[in-house]
Amino acid sequence: MRVLCRIWLDKNGKAFGEGPYNLLKRIEETGSLSRAAKEMGISYKKAWQIINNCERRLGFKLLDKRAGGKKGGGSLVTEEGKNFMKSYEEFRDEIRDFVEKTFQKYFGKDNWSLKN
Amino acid sequence: MRVLCRIWLDKNGKAFGEGPYNLLKRIEETGSLSRAAKEMGISYKKAWQIINNCERRLGFKLLDKRAGGKKGGGSLVTEEGKNFMKSYEEFRDEIRDFVEKTFQKYFGKDNWSLKN
Repeated sequence: MRVLCRIWLDKNGKAFGEGPYNLLKRIEETGSLSRAAKEMGISYKKAWQIINNCERRLGFKLLDKRAGGKKGGGSLVTEEGKNFMKSYEEFRDEIRDFVEKTFQKYFGKDNWSLKN
Repeated sequence: MRVLCRIWLDKNGKAFGEGPYNLLKRIEETGSLSRAAKEMGISYKKAWQIINNCERRLGFKLLDKRAGGKKGGGSLVTEEGKNFMKSYEEFRDEIRDFVEKTFQKYFGKDNWSLKN
């Protein structure tokens, strides 16, 4: 047996969670919303809606969209977005560790549940 | 902003979580699977499938079904089921508290997120 956990931030609806985080992470790596969307197997439009929805609920910009120049347009994660991602990572990791530890405490090997 | 969290136990698929817990809680209160199902707005068949699926994955019986006598049949939560529910409650409550505390630490009032 194992424990699974899903956490998300909510503000009149989903404001941030693992999906938007993964999308932002790929935008950071590729510098491009369309490449990030392709990597995740979602449409450009869908990716844009995800980011837009988060920005609206969080109340600040996550992406800085550059108009196309010689090398075409690109997207950069804003400073505020980077700070937010870092906070989210630490927040999520602390919770994951605690959930695993608490699962072991109640349902782990030395506990009654595996005797059944 | 607030944090939402969903936890469940998994063993080759969902083995236990808030839904089955609520169903068992109502069976305990009413002594009847069909009354519990009605209260939750699900069919008797669906309720039975939920319990059956949990029992199969957890590896022990949650319900003790009584054949109908003068007062008709009923369902009792087994001793093992009661112990399991108690462990699950404590496990879930500890995690909820920690998630809320960690949310406050990273995204609470005195943190940067509300300045945005």
